[in-house]
Amino acid sequence: MSHNSFGHLFRVTTWGESHGPAIGCVVDGCPPRLPLDEADIQTWLDRRRPGQNRFTTQRQEPDTVRILSGVFEGKTTGTPIALHIDNVDQRSKDYAEIAESYRPGHAQWAYQQKYGIQDYRGGGRSSARETATRVAAGAIARKVLGAGLAIRGALIQLGSRRIDRARWDWAEVERNPFWCPDAKTAALWEADLDALRKAGSSTGAVIEIEASGVPIGLGAPVHGKLDADLAGAMMGINAVKGVEIGAGFAAAALRGETNADPMRIQGNQVVFTANNAGGILGGISTGQPIVVRFAVKPTSSILIPIPSVNARGEEVEVSTKGRHDPCVGIRAVPVGEAMLACVLADHLLRHRAQCGEEKT
Amino acid sequence: MSHNSFGHLFRVTTWGESHGPAIGCVVDGCPPRLPLDEADIQTWLDRRRPGQNRFTTQRQEPDTVRILSGVFEGKTTGTPIALHIDNVDQRSKDYAEIAESYRPGHAQWAYQQKYGIQDYRGGGRSSARETATRVAAGAIARKVLGAGLAIRGALIQLGSRRIDRARWDWAEVERNPFWCPDAKTAALWEADLDALRKAGSSTGAVIEIEASGVPIGLGAPVHGKLDADLAGAMMGINAVKGVEIGAGFAAAALRGETNADPMRIQGNQVVFTANNAGGILGGISTGQPIVVRFAVKPTSSILIPIPSVNARGEEVEVSTKGRHDPCVGIRAVPVGEAMLACVLADHLLRHRAQCGEEKT
Amino acid sequence: MSHNSFGHLFRVTTWGESHGPAIGCVVDGCPPRLPLDEADIQTWLDRRRPGQNRFTTQRQEPDTVRILSGVFEGKTTGTPIALHIDNVDQRSKDYAEIAESYRPGHAQWAYQQKYGIQDYRGGGRSSARETATRVAAGAIARKVLGAGLAIRGALIQLGSRRIDRARWDWAEVERNPFWCPDAKTAALWEADLDALRKAGSSTGAVIEIEASGVPIGLGAPVHGKLDADLAGAMMGINAVKGVEIGAGFAAAALRGETNADPMRIQGNQVVFTANNAGGILGGISTGQPIVVRFAVKPTSSILIPIPSVNARGEEVEVSTKGRHDPCVGIRAVPVGEAMLACVLADHLLRHRAQCGEEKT
Amino acid sequence: MSHNSFGHLFRVTTWGESHGPAIGCVVDGCPPRLPLDEADIQTWLDRRRPGQNRFTTQRQEPDTVRILSGVFEGKTTGTPIALHIDNVDQRSKDYAEIAESYRPGHAQWAYQQKYGIQDYRGGGRSSARETATRVAAGAIARKVLGAGLAIRGALIQLGSRRIDRARWDWAEVERNPFWCPDAKTAALWEADLDALRKAGSSTGAVIEIEASGVPIGLGAPVHGKLDADLAGAMMGINAVKGVEIGAGFAAAALRGETNADPMRIQGNQVVFTANNAGGILGGISTGQPIVVRFAVKPTSSILIPIPSVNARGEEVEVSTKGRHDPCVGIRAVPVGEAMLACVLADHLLRHRAQCGEEKT
Repeated sequence: MSHNSFGHLFRVTTWGESHGPAIGCVVDGCPPRLPLDEADIQTWLDRRRPGQNRFTTQRQEPDTVRILSGVFEGKTTGTPIALHIDNVDQRSKDYAEIAESYRPGHAQWAYQQKYGIQDYRGGGRSSARETATRVAAGAIARKVLGAGLAIRGALIQLGSRRIDRARWDWAEVERNPFWCPDAKTAALWEADLDALRKAGSSTGAVIEIEASGVPIGLGAPVHGKLDADLAGAMMGINAVKGVEIGAGFAAAALRGETNADPMRIQGNQVVFTANNAGGILGGISTGQPIVVRFAVKPTSSILIPIPSVNARGEEVEVSTKGRHDPCVGIRAVPVGEAMLACVLADHLLRHRAQCGEEKT
Repeated sequence: MSHNSFGHLFRVTTWGESHGPAIGCVVDGCPPRLPLDEADIQTWLDRRRPGQNRFTTQRQEPDTVRILSGVFEGKTTGTPIALHIDNVDQRSKDYAEIAESYRPGHAQWAYQQKYGIQDYRGGGRSSARETATRVAAGAIARKVLGAGLAIRGALIQLGSRRIDRARWDWAEVERNPFWCPDAKTAALWEADLDALRKAGSSTGAVIEIEASGVPIGLGAPVHGKLDADLAGAMMGINAVKGVEIGAGFAAAALRGETNADPMRIQGNQVVFTANNAGGILGGISTGQPIVVRFAVKPTSSILIPIPSVNARGEEVEVSTKGRHDPCVGIRAVPVGEAMLACVLADHLLRHRAQCGEEKT
Repeated sequence: MSHNSFGHLFRVTTWGESHGPAIGCVVDGCPPRLPLDEADIQTWLDRRRPGQNRFTTQRQEPDTVRILSGVFEGKTTGTPIALHIDNVDQRSKDYAEIAESYRPGHAQWAYQQKYGIQDYRGGGRSSARETATRVAAGAIARKVLGAGLAIRGALIQLGSRRIDRARWDWAEVERNPFWCPDAKTAALWEADLDALRKAGSSTGAVIEIEASGVPIGLGAPVHGKLDADLAGAMMGINAVKGVEIGAGFAAAALRGETNADPMRIQGNQVVFTANNAGGILGGISTGQPIVVRFAVKPTSSILIPIPSVNARGEEVEVSTKGRHDPCVGIRAVPVGEAMLACVLADHLLRHRAQCGEEKT
Repeated sequence: MSHNSFGHLFRVTTWGESHGPAIGCVVDGCPPRLPLDEADIQTWLDRRRPGQNRFTTQRQEPDTVRILSGVFEGKTTGTPIALHIDNVDQRSKDYAEIAESYRPGHAQWAYQQKYGIQDYRGGGRSSARETATRVAAGAIARKVLGAGLAIRGALIQLGSRRIDRARWDWAEVERNPFWCPDAKTAALWEADLDALRKAGSSTGAVIEIEASGVPIGLGAPVHGKLDADLAGAMMGINAVKGVEIGAGFAAAALRGETNADPMRIQGNQVVFTANNAGGILGGISTGQPIVVRFAVKPTSSILIPIPSVNARGEEVEVSTKGRHDPCVGIRAVPVGEAMLACVLADHLLRHRAQCGEEKT
């Protein structure tokens, strides 16, 4: 079952609410003897951390991770790794007035209907805060995947404005607060977002994640396909409404001869001269870069009032005054990277189980 | 684990190769005492069946299903339901010449790399033939969901040509060979596909599936979200490259106040005045119609030759002469319906387990 | 979930009722390229087959197995292996009169209470007939384990009479109808069982299964321990009421210095000079022979009438006239072997996933 | 997968080492709106706590539990419940000298072989300390089961001395340090254990756990049988070597007419006039009390030296000077109760999922 766990052999169970004492996760099934310390994880958490610039929520969370088990003298032992992150900047009063009124487009109403109860403070379990634990787990997944496999992500659309792929420069991604690979577009987004913030609104985004150096053969057809698991993992990130692999939705408009990635021989290796498949055929990795994109909707916590209802069944207008991201899609970049890392680590172990060591 | 199973409580395990003696599945976890006979399943299989018009493969498969267990005197018993469909029109000689040459864009090469062996006849396990078992399982899922929950699908884009949503008419879907809800576009697709077939090519498609009458509260946040499971289920269908829920990728370009579906009170009920969410908030069903779309790439089995390699590591040109669908997306409509039914049935049982009877 | 599946990576899903058209199973996760044909499986099914002597049920079932998928040109392909066994000797009339009356000690009443319906013919799903599919799956598990790992079983107690372990001779096991390793006791059992049959009664038994050549390191502590999974697997066999490993219940009476198996060095190897642990420490295999025993209760289908109730809520006396085993424990020997094989195959793959290739 | 998780719908994931900073678990799938606070859990932890008398290890651990998530304003919310217990009395120096020498009969050597690394301090993950998290989870399981279902356990054999069942008095269990239901035997055990401690030895035990008020119909045949899951759960407790249900191993010696529990009508209810089945038929609960027994071997950590090997491959004698239980079976009583509670809670939810509300 998978209420709050994901993965099968590299298995992550997450817990915690936005305004509870802490959040955390348990990573089970990690191979033994991998070097791992808290700094290895902290470095990825710091990338996702809120409050680092004016385009993300101003909640100040150091997100300091502690390893409570599963590591001995700097190495994993094969036993479950418990990760713990204290919540330090909860301001529950920000939410007091909306405890009873449901934000349209937010999980709050649905949780209440499903469970008949909820920790409404800061969105409780449905808060983007939960994604910190995914990033922490992703750091361990990267260790499992090894240095030869690189995962990196970028924001390629913010609101209705897309990057120009001709200007793509991975180095640029680290230089702006948007993970934008196109410097020129990044500058425009800055203005876009400032305008949005002033208007008390928010907007969506599209993120692209790429993994290179992926072993051939990962994926378990036909109901544990690598792309199916990736789609589930990405759609499971807060606010995601669409996922595509390789050519994605554009593939629908292609003809067979244009879509099929030709294969040639280089040295002793098979190489593909295109990558519409996004690195996956028949649910199995081909060794080409895996390319996955996902769309994030605008956050529903905005100043602009929206018609809604409250817990007493009355019609109200709801506007949200707490600290929020004008575009949650920005911080979804490291989360998407982490989810891709976790899915690949899981399938690496699954493939090794059935077929022995993988081809690289 | 989920190599060839999907679902947790309504659990389907499928087996079979395109040119083996039979295909089938085992449906486990079905509630007892539901009326079920072979005709209940056959009716849905007949919709997916190939060879019914000139726009699908000419392979003639009656797809006659037999129930081998789990049903007694016309009712489910709560024990596993084994479904069995004989393969009757295998023509393996069609594939003899390509046994050694890999179709670009096809799973064949990836299977060979992963397993070091494959049943290459007709695509073996990666054949769209496997989807018949999903449709069969979906028929049982519909019984679990009950008559109040309706699932229906339509083709909304074929190649680069989209339907006009203003002309959407569900009744039209049953009147043309494309499950097209727009009669005018259906006529154009007929010409499009005839041209493609003459050219020996193929094209992709976009399918939309809708479920209405869905109980509120289905979905298990945060790692068993209903939309995450739907995304995985749809991406796991052969040739699918993208999945979206509700506004989907278009949500990225919206602003918060446009995207959030307002809530109002009608009678004693909360109603939503829009459905950008596609019926799911925070991974939980809201009672609105669930709307999911997925993109299917063009089939890689085409007459037009593509640069490829063979099993001896030589460069070759591959063209595929067997019987194929010029647009596999067409037959994906009933498959998408079935997958949605299975995911909902699973979550209905999961919700009942944790929270008791569901709200409708 | 595990309603009708067992194992995680070597995963077996079984289906079928005693008097339905067929029984079968799907074995998923099997490594590719293992030589496998129907004869490899049939040889083990023949050992379990009923009607071979006067001490088992006279139902005549050839138990001919067909492989419907997952094997190509004599080798496994890594895709699910569907096994199918037709039921040919159903005589449902034998059961007509007891359809409405519940056999005390039999699953029939419990099934009715749980599901509100049941296929009562021959015990339906609860029939020992289901174990044929376990034996079939076990045959594949043995292929996964390889020739270096030997699994064999014996009956060590029938009714109140135990074998004399000093006379244990594995060769003897194949020479009598009881899988008894002690010829002298086998002769006494023959008389015991003839008397029981004449009396219209039945009795229980204790079975011991041993696996030698087991790699070191199998088992996933602390909730996937090898002994815990073995206990579940054995207790899940029909009519089993107790399971023990190594010294088992007798270990309770030992002192620490007597129970602990001393370790010495022989060549470069660690050897144990005793095996109270039954080959498992801390849930992990040690390389010593794994020894598991389980107790089977007497079958509840006997001629002697027992006070019971019927479906109309009336008190009745029930005696069962169908064809039954006076001691179902006898045929449980090959079933126990198969379950041990399946558990070990599963853990072999699990260990390889997490830790790489196993030590032998 | 189940490396460090157990249960499917009521799912417990445990983590932590004996001498790490803390131990804990995540309980996922708990129904919402159950009253729960830390005191509800602490009361059960206090029963298992070490150092309360001279017959258990003198390690002083307050075992104070904190709830870090999943509970809001005193009620469960349906989201994962994280439980955290700090380790406060680690004295790792006790173990320094045996870090390199393997205790015979202990998991230490097997862990080293499997993982190539281990946290050897105090047994690391294999320590009985891990069972505190099971007891904590069991406290929540009891809430799920409700007040109508009572679970209680007793020690019925310590070393070779068994209780006299004729003197069984449940009230007595709380009055002696052994959970012994027979006051006279408890007095003898006191002398037995004092002698053992002086000798620097240890001994085993047999525990019996009983659940009354169990709903009819729990259990998922044929591979998720209630008794099979119970057997796995009990065998998974540290040092357990045998498990039996109802008549258990003694059933092997019974005849069919003696073993089958007769059924009669009382009022409108079916009642059983015996309970050899231990409350389970065909893997399904019958409403009778569930009775399960398990045997615990003597702890391997004793003062008496045993022939062993060290990490350098040399033969050594090992004696263990740390703080240990002369009979770990004593503290296994609350652990067995907790495991029974967890298995029943899981099956209660599983049954509700498939069949709707359960019968009581």
